Amino acid sequence: MPAPLKVAILGCGVVGTQVARRLTEHADELASRVGTPLELVGIAVRDVAQPREGVTGTPLADLLTQDAESLVAGADVVVELMGGIEPARSLILRAIEGGASVVTANKALLAQDGPTLYAAADAAGVDLYFEAAVAGAIPIVRPVRESLAGDQVQRVLGIVNGTTNYVLDRMATDGLELEQAVKEAQTLGYAEADPTADVEGHDAAAKAAILASLAFHTRVALDDVACEGISAVTADDVAWAQRTGHTIKLLAIAERNAHDGVTGIQVRVHPALVPSDHPLAGVRGAFNAVFVEAEAAGELMFYGRGAGGAPTSSAVLGDLVSVARHRVLGGRGPVESSYAALPVLPALAARTRFQVRLAVEDRPGVLAQVAAALAEHGVSIEAVRQVAYPVPAGDGDALALLLITTHAAQESALAATVTALTDLDAVREVVSVLRVEGA
Amino acid sequence: MPAPLKVAILGCGVVGTQVARRLTEHADELASRVGTPLELVGIAVRDVAQPREGVTGTPLADLLTQDAESLVAGADVVVELMGGIEPARSLILRAIEGGASVVTANKALLAQDGPTLYAAADAAGVDLYFEAAVAGAIPIVRPVRESLAGDQVQRVLGIVNGTTNYVLDRMATDGLELEQAVKEAQTLGYAEADPTADVEGHDAAAKAAILASLAFHTRVALDDVACEGISAVTADDVAWAQRTGHTIKLLAIAERNAHDGVTGIQVRVHPALVPSDHPLAGVRGAFNAVFVEAEAAGELMFYGRGAGGAPTSSAVLGDLVSVARHRVLGGRGPVESSYAALPVLPALAARTRFQVRLAVEDRPGVLAQVAAALAEHGVSIEAVRQVAYPVPAGDGDALALLLITTHAAQESALAATVTALTDLDAVREVVSVLRVEGA
Ligand SMILES: NC(=O)c1ccc[n+]([C@@H]2O[C@H](COP(=O)([O-])OP(=O)(O)OC[C@H]3O[C@@H](n4cnc5c(N)ncnc54)[C@H](OP(=O)(O)O)[C@@H]3O)[C@@H](O)[C@H]2O)c1
Ligand SMILES: NC(=O)c1ccc[n+]([C@@H]2O[C@H](COP(=O)([O-])OP(=O)(O)OC[C@H]3O[C@@H](n4cnc5c(N)ncnc54)[C@H](OP(=O)(O)O)[C@@H]3O)[C@@H](O)[C@H]2O)c1
Repeated sequence: MPAPLKVAILGCGVVGTQVARRLTEHADELASRVGTPLELVGIAVRDVAQPREGVTGTPLADLLTQDAESLVAGADVVVELMGGIEPARSLILRAIEGGASVVTANKALLAQDGPTLYAAADAAGVDLYFEAAVAGAIPIVRPVRESLAGDQVQRVLGIVNGTTNYVLDRMATDGLELEQAVKEAQTLGYAEADPTADVEGHDAAAKAAILASLAFHTRVALDDVACEGISAVTADDVAWAQRTGHTIKLLAIAERNAHDGVTGIQVRVHPALVPSDHPLAGVRGAFNAVFVEAEAAGELMFYGRGAGGAPTSSAVLGDLVSVARHRVLGGRGPVESSYAALPVLPALAARTRFQVRLAVEDRPGVLAQVAAALAEHGVSIEAVRQVAYPVPAGDGDALALLLITTHAAQESALAATVTALTDLDAVREVVSVLRVEGA
Repeated sequence: MPAPLKVAILGCGVVGTQVARRLTEHADELASRVGTPLELVGIAVRDVAQPREGVTGTPLADLLTQDAESLVAGADVVVELMGGIEPARSLILRAIEGGASVVTANKALLAQDGPTLYAAADAAGVDLYFEAAVAGAIPIVRPVRESLAGDQVQRVLGIVNGTTNYVLDRMATDGLELEQAVKEAQTLGYAEADPTADVEGHDAAAKAAILASLAFHTRVALDDVACEGISAVTADDVAWAQRTGHTIKLLAIAERNAHDGVTGIQVRVHPALVPSDHPLAGVRGAFNAVFVEAEAAGELMFYGRGAGGAPTSSAVLGDLVSVARHRVLGGRGPVESSYAALPVLPALAARTRFQVRLAVEDRPGVLAQVAAALAEHGVSIEAVRQVAYPVPAGDGDALALLLITTHAAQESALAATVTALTDLDAVREVVSVLRVEGA
């Protein structure tokens, strides 16, 4: 057997602890798979003295160090699990420049600075792997960049944030309002004390940028992603979705599209109505799933746990085995390619179906006015449903609720339509406008 | 760019035609992904003169040849899509010995002779890839052997035969009997004129052997797979499954197990009741899915089209890009490892839950007798339900149907129990015995 490979782990938190533990407990098996032993040479943390479950009192404790730089300097493979931009970025660059291979789960860093890191890895001829950055345990990076390398991806629809999926699920099953569901998620440890990054879709947007880059061989930055979270979704929206045979999911979407004669891609994150018989609709609780439509393969779905120490460690260790094997056998994994360099189309160019709920005066002629306003903007109606609307206190008028589902319309046309509808006398309120995806 | 790679395709049938077409139509894109052009140098067939849709009258027709041996001799990469054992086996071995990399979709050959082929590829230092052999378009070989390389797989449950899944689905949705559903599948081209290989589970067993080998790093041959098809499944079985919140699926199962103090694996194919809320229950029609339980990753599922020319070509081309890249960049993909060499445990050692339907005399004391017979063999009852049973013509006795769900029991104990039940006076018939999986 060749000499053992020196592995350094940066970070000993939720994920790092599990990776260190599995590396030690399954050392023999990993050595068989790699072709040589993996020797854990150190684990960098901010504070060595802090007590750590599963580490303090075990041989792992002796490996803790506050000197990440020295640790990186002596390693063959660096596993970055600290999170955040700095010092993660500098340490990864130092590792690469020193000829080490790198495995990371850091979606925030990749979405912001991926191209710099990929270029550095290319220049040094080392691997930079990041399966755990997109959907935790779910193998999605490798399938998209390797298994689908002979195909053409048309569209990716992903449930890539477990916190919001849990929240929407609880709103659907028990009629909770968003705020209550978020509190529950916090109590259970699914949501952070400050849930903004999840609820506003920022975490999903980082993953959308990474997925889109891989699927379309194009550099997609975080700024290219149009992002809308779930903070405006109400219990009423969820209930109406169910009544019309849908489930509301926060989706990360990347699709090939044509706009003004230009073929490009569109990348966005927003809540959407998904038909209840779509495979994504059944993805419950904290699970994630990525649905891919490819020209030859057709529809594919990848499903599993999107977060958590143990699941995420599975993806990290799979990458670790791959990059370690490359060091033993020679060669290198597939590199990030952006040869296609497709233009990223503006958000307003997206075409989707919409479901609009309007509170209107309950008198003849109103539907005709509404229909005319839609037609004027080139938005065509697929279905309309009218039901009684609870009359607001102090207002004597009888109101009706119009539930309109449109055919695919351009986002810009719909936006203009909503403005026009708001201006109609007979329309009391545009209660909600939601996109419909996956039909 | 390095010199173009010479690609030979063996077979121009359902899959071969699509692979040849995509290789030509997407030549530029594939060249970008590989790092050099892929030059299709020939397509071997039995009969060059035969008219072929999508080939005759196109430039592909000029590439057809009946001389597979010469074609193989001059190729850098050989894509075997003829099927069957010979001459596929000899041609693949010749290609490997000549230093070519090989991509194949031939599950029958791999299940029968895989180890010989893997050993030859190892000796020659070339790649032998076979993503399309297991579940058509679904990336499953790569995720199991690479993404999960740092994890420990506990169990694999796969719906890997689209024909039987379609048949069971039609039985469930329209109450068809098996024979009718098979005829319908034949009319639609989902089932062959002789449906034996699908209906009796042989096709699924070949895939189970391949999946088990990968997941457990152990050589599993076709003979190691205990195989039972769906030919005994009745419309009544399907209806009762639904009434008890289940769906019947033909599953390919490979699991880590302990028996008599020995840790080993068990590989089997049989119809099973799957709870309706299990992700596999929602896999409809001709779709396939593979559900994996791993120690760290938890539950994963891979879903997509398991057959068809275009979907299968996606997997073949993904492999082709991988092996071609290795030729350009140096190195080689992961090799088949069987280091774990776990013993394959006998079929009767499997432990599962069962649902048993018994036609019994409708009088007091019968349930007690039945329960005693089960208890005697160590089989414990989870639930019992008793309903009126239609009395057979010419038989005056009142009968009842006992529907018994057991806790997990060893297959051998259950077999002995069924014999004991058959011998009981009060038991008129053991109507059906079905395993319950995925709970
Ligand atoms: N948690 C998940 O489920 C999950 C899933 C997918 C991806 N990820 C990604 O995985 C990465 C790690 O996540 P996590 O949840 O494990 O984070 P975490 O629990 O907060 O752990 C971070 C670790 O990094 C160490 N660290 C932070 N800054 C450091 C510095 N400047 N120098 C040295 N050590 C430093 C911390 O040291 P101290 O302990 O001394 O403070 C801590 O041990 C992040 O990029 C995250 O996005 C996480
Ligand atoms: N079809 C699917 O959906 C699917 C899915 C997954 C995997 N697979 C696997 O893919 C492989 C190909 O399947 P397929 O459906 O494409 O088969 P197919 O339609 O029957 O095509 C077989 C091709 O191989 C050629 N061939 C057969 N024997 C030959 C010989 N001795 N010498 C030269 N050429 C020979 C045939 O030539 P002629 O045309 O001249 O007869 C034909 O072109 C099989 O291993 C199958 O198990 C198929």
